[in-house]
Amino acid sequence: MKTVVIRNIKRADAAVVKRLGALGTSTVHEAYGRAGLMKPYLRPAWAGGEAAGTAVTVLVHPGDNWMIHVAVEQCQAGDILVVGCSADNTDGMFGDLLATSLMARGVKGLVIDAGCRDVKSLREMGFPVWSKAISAKGTVKATLGAVNIPVVCAGINVEPGDAVVADDDGVVVIRKKDAAEVAAKAEKRHADEEGKRKQLAAGKLGLDMYNMREPLAKAGLVYIDEPPSD
Amino acid sequence: MKTVVIRNIKRADAAVVKRLGALGTSTVHEAYGRAGLMKPYLRPAWAGGEAAGTAVTVLVHPGDNWMIHVAVEQCQAGDILVVGCSADNTDGMFGDLLATSLMARGVKGLVIDAGCRDVKSLREMGFPVWSKAISAKGTVKATLGAVNIPVVCAGINVEPGDAVVADDDGVVVIRKKDAAEVAAKAEKRHADEEGKRKQLAAGKLGLDMYNMREPLAKAGLVYIDEPPSD
Amino acid sequence: MKTVVIRNIKRADAAVVKRLGALGTSTVHEAYGRAGLMKPYLRPAWAGGEAAGTAVTVLVHPGDNWMIHVAVEQCQAGDILVVGCSADNTDGMFGDLLATSLMARGVKGLVIDAGCRDVKSLREMGFPVWSKAISAKGTVKATLGAVNIPVVCAGINVEPGDAVVADDDGVVVIRKKDAAEVAAKAEKRHADEEGKRKQLAAGKLGLDMYNMREPLAKAGLVYIDEPPSD
Amino acid sequence: MKTVVIRNIKRADAAVVKRLGALGTSTVHEAYGRAGLMKPYLRPAWAGGEAAGTAVTVLVHPGDNWMIHVAVEQCQAGDILVVGCSADNTDGMFGDLLATSLMARGVKGLVIDAGCRDVKSLREMGFPVWSKAISAKGTVKATLGAVNIPVVCAGINVEPGDAVVADDDGVVVIRKKDAAEVAAKAEKRHADEEGKRKQLAAGKLGLDMYNMREPLAKAGLVYIDEPPSD
Amino acid sequence: MKTVVIRNIKRADAAVVKRLGALGTSTVHEAYGRAGLMKPYLRPAWAGGEAAGTAVTVLVHPGDNWMIHVAVEQCQAGDILVVGCSADNTDGMFGDLLATSLMARGVKGLVIDAGCRDVKSLREMGFPVWSKAISAKGTVKATLGAVNIPVVCAGINVEPGDAVVADDDGVVVIRKKDAAEVAAKAEKRHADEEGKRKQLAAGKLGLDMYNMREPLAKAGLVYIDEPPSD
Amino acid sequence: MKTVVIRNIKRADAAVVKRLGALGTSTVHEAYGRAGLMKPYLRPAWAGGEAAGTAVTVLVHPGDNWMIHVAVEQCQAGDILVVGCSADNTDGMFGDLLATSLMARGVKGLVIDAGCRDVKSLREMGFPVWSKAISAKGTVKATLGAVNIPVVCAGINVEPGDAVVADDDGVVVIRKKDAAEVAAKAEKRHADEEGKRKQLAAGKLGLDMYNMREPLAKAGLVYIDEPPSD
Repeated sequence: MKTVVIRNIKRADAAVVKRLGALGTSTVHEAYGRAGLMKPYLRPAWAGGEAAGTAVTVLVHPGDNWMIHVAVEQCQAGDILVVGCSADNTDGMFGDLLATSLMARGVKGLVIDAGCRDVKSLREMGFPVWSKAISAKGTVKATLGAVNIPVVCAGINVEPGDAVVADDDGVVVIRKKDAAEVAAKAEKRHADEEGKRKQLAAGKLGLDMYNMREPLAKAGLVYIDEPPSD
Repeated sequence: MKTVVIRNIKRADAAVVKRLGALGTSTVHEAYGRAGLMKPYLRPAWAGGEAAGTAVTVLVHPGDNWMIHVAVEQCQAGDILVVGCSADNTDGMFGDLLATSLMARGVKGLVIDAGCRDVKSLREMGFPVWSKAISAKGTVKATLGAVNIPVVCAGINVEPGDAVVADDDGVVVIRKKDAAEVAAKAEKRHADEEGKRKQLAAGKLGLDMYNMREPLAKAGLVYIDEPPSD
Repeated sequence: MKTVVIRNIKRADAAVVKRLGALGTSTVHEAYGRAGLMKPYLRPAWAGGEAAGTAVTVLVHPGDNWMIHVAVEQCQAGDILVVGCSADNTDGMFGDLLATSLMARGVKGLVIDAGCRDVKSLREMGFPVWSKAISAKGTVKATLGAVNIPVVCAGINVEPGDAVVADDDGVVVIRKKDAAEVAAKAEKRHADEEGKRKQLAAGKLGLDMYNMREPLAKAGLVYIDEPPSD
Repeated sequence: MKTVVIRNIKRADAAVVKRLGALGTSTVHEAYGRAGLMKPYLRPAWAGGEAAGTAVTVLVHPGDNWMIHVAVEQCQAGDILVVGCSADNTDGMFGDLLATSLMARGVKGLVIDAGCRDVKSLREMGFPVWSKAISAKGTVKATLGAVNIPVVCAGINVEPGDAVVADDDGVVVIRKKDAAEVAAKAEKRHADEEGKRKQLAAGKLGLDMYNMREPLAKAGLVYIDEPPSD
Repeated sequence: MKTVVIRNIKRADAAVVKRLGALGTSTVHEAYGRAGLMKPYLRPAWAGGEAAGTAVTVLVHPGDNWMIHVAVEQCQAGDILVVGCSADNTDGMFGDLLATSLMARGVKGLVIDAGCRDVKSLREMGFPVWSKAISAKGTVKATLGAVNIPVVCAGINVEPGDAVVADDDGVVVIRKKDAAEVAAKAEKRHADEEGKRKQLAAGKLGLDMYNMREPLAKAGLVYIDEPPSD
Repeated sequence: MKTVVIRNIKRADAAVVKRLGALGTSTVHEAYGRAGLMKPYLRPAWAGGEAAGTAVTVLVHPGDNWMIHVAVEQCQAGDILVVGCSADNTDGMFGDLLATSLMARGVKGLVIDAGCRDVKSLREMGFPVWSKAISAKGTVKATLGAVNIPVVCAGINVEPGDAVVADDDGVVVIRKKDAAEVAAKAEKRHADEEGKRKQLAAGKLGLDMYNMREPLAKAGLVYIDEPPSD
């Protein structure tokens, strides 16, 4: 692992990221071919938070948040800080002071494969965090990691500048080169869903709307009535 | 496993199910001899939701929600859809479109031993879901399962038509043949609890109210004062 | 294990405990040399609850809450009941009746290394609980444990009378002999944080505020610009 | 839950059970339509043990093994004792004394959704156990459960007399009414596998042997050569 | 937390520890009133290892094994090194070099609430380790902990000099002041078990040997024959 | 996600991979700057297996092993098959037939972020597997994934052709461009360890051998004798 900070990274287009954020994680993830979704053990520190931004990545080690302090300087307005850890760890590496610093720079949120703390303050500040745990456990500042190298966070390899969309359903990451195409597909998907929602609300069955009856029968599905006895 | 859909199942009596729902999971579970409770890893997708209904059961496979679409057609007003999975899986098999379809049919809620998504919408729609995970992860429609066969969901064997009661404390299942008797016992228990609550609020000790002092002494409990030193 | 109830325990000073409670778990934990924090699998049964008090300790066995009933009598105003269990267990050992009894005695909250139930009622009553699980599962009253012996709860050894502070970030325990010193340190830390927060909000970097640049360079951190290609 | 012991249960045919045991869990599970497999958190207490038998079922409660003692009397030669627990529990409910008693009756093994102990002795005695945990933790004898009612064990609903096959790959349960048909299918599958194994050992590809190339192409799979750069 | 090394600790009597070791964890744990057992997530790094000794305790932090190096010097012949960690961590804090050093001092084994590595070498050296994980993950030497203060390890509070017994069933800790009494009780229990084993092997039922039939009937257990239909 | 098979990948140098394999995971991981180690939940299916090879990567979906069959054709002598899954899954995706096929091609082992089965046969065949679970659970062949794209497996991003070293301590991955440098460093580290081992075996303390006493004192470590009372 190189103990390095990479500056001046290329970022996904801000307008595209904004469009992705308007669509939400489920739609974007589907439009991306069902790729890019972090594992569901990452949960919002407070319900209802939403964020879309470009990734500044950090690699930290268990029990040590030094590199998060280093990473703040590399963040700019519209970014989301994404923290991977070299081993499973639940320590509270991030709290309201770091959130204050990130908000001062226009950062949209934090995604961390470890713990966070000061949850009540984060909610009051409106700074959204997705983390593996909530823990008051403090951390040291003793070991170097890296900023803006690719990091695996909750099962997804994140490259600096990638688009990140996060809400109550989780966190999805789109490579910066794919962002525009995915946004277009997701918008189409979103538009289609509105029509489907109306049909379903009117009582139409998905079986009919999606034309599933024939493939189900071909696959061998049979319908029977409950046996009279029992 | 039979890849089958069973129609025209017998359901627990709707009036009884309503009475059970008014009592809540803890009281019903106690009245049922402390049986029928699903494992506590099933959690409400949003806090405060409550539901009582008759089970329509579905067996799905990991990463595949095809049979949930099939099951919708078998649901009627007053049902709760109960989904078991053939292996541990956290994928988001259920979202707001399926919820729209179920609400159009008068279904009361969903219990799924896998993941759900669109949590924000589900909360806004007021459709309650109990699941193992929240995940935007999409699923395929490729493999048959079954509808209305007995399924194990979160540690409980659920038969089609069983009464299901769910709230913030979890999900409890009562065999349809036992539902009326359990409702009666639970109502009695609930009535008794009100009197106990008043006594406890007035400062009476459970030790006295439940006559525990004698059995505790018989079991060998001793009271001592803290040693002066140390 | 001695099946004993110890009465007349010594408690941490009530005024000191109140000061600790005003500071919150993260600040107190840091001031205590990053010690005393329970494992983060303990979570508040409802968000936003806060409590500070002196520990009355209970040791129970899986599936059995008899000793909690015994412990209630040993509680007085300003206490927090702390329950350890001799093996991992998620049963709902505590509900609204026990909470009613504890509130009647002025108890501030419950910390339990097992499950609780009646979450909706607990929230409405305003009685805060930190637990390992939420479960309607009922328990028997058959096996003796102990009250006011040292118990390990969620990874921390708690002695009767210790100061306990709990909020959305977790639960921290301070030995009664250390409470006054920790309160003083935590207050100083809290005061210092306000100044730091203002500087960070104004855009000052933690790297500069904490003088991290020199130690980072000494440790070998290098800054490079993103390579042009890739 | 009924606190009852049911005697004189019907058992799957002993000769059929023996044939199932000779085939192993993977083959039997496949032949059963990929049904009946317990969750993989059940592991052999010692590697290499194998067992096939008819289920005598027990329902116990956390921390209490009283009903296992009751169940021993209901076991006969060729049985496997299957223990479900009303809540997650890792206590060592079973050890070498109970194993001695079961071996004296000709019982083939134990499957328990809780813990076992005396692992070294069990291995030396050659009594195979599949459990959720290994733990020296002792249990009380205070609360009734049931013997020979249907119990859910590690995600599978087991009925008394069902056929149980267990080896290093896990535990599979076959309804007694299905056992003969499954044995026949499994034997056919086993025979087919030998031919396949030889072809694969000789270098034939599964892609060709299973005729997968066409369906893969239809599904849209494309082959490309690695790009020269990168 | 005090960053301190305490020297010249008092140890449980070596002869008593040896007697405890001869009895094994299950018997000792039962004789100790079912107390002192570490959580079953601690597992032997290699099967069949056994150890009994006096505890030298270490508190480390996640990702950092510096204090283990410090602790080695405090170990003497007949000790077992017991390592607690301030937060959940699976890093490989201990390997064959540290084991070589401990063996040179006559240390009997290691119990660590974190990870170990070099498992193959440890097995070949015959140095037994009980750990939470096996992981090649390396650790830093940057943060002070403590040696020979009480530490919580896998749910048990261990004091320096306590007796530790470990085998395939887990790890049990006995306070040094209780060790002689527990050894005597455990020996009596062990002697009694031999007689029981013979009776059970001869076919006597535990129901009769333990006189359980009357208390079972009193508790309400009923025996019925399986209903003819079904 | 592209549903693609990439052929003719570049592989790390075979001679270098062999050297890495001779050193073992812990030494290689340390020499790589403590990078590249998969999470410790991946465990060997049978103890004592060792493998070193070049990665052929596969992305599968939960419950579906179709792409593993596709990947076999892309394997050549000296490879290790590395399987990532788009969501947590424990199904037995790999067994002795696939192992037979891989062995026929000279493949050294399998690393899979899901389950495997036929463990007894794998051990007898001497084909080493590192997996997340052992499960007889069968899988379907219905959904496309990809072969030889970068995949995250157990927390590590693996690129096709990377060097993989696996043993009882886990699985470590080295980028092909870094392999030669890491091998050289690891060999030096290994040589150094022999000298250290001899000194430690002779009774020299790590405190002295690593010159830790001064930095420990600087960090504030104090030594005290146990207080006489207590």
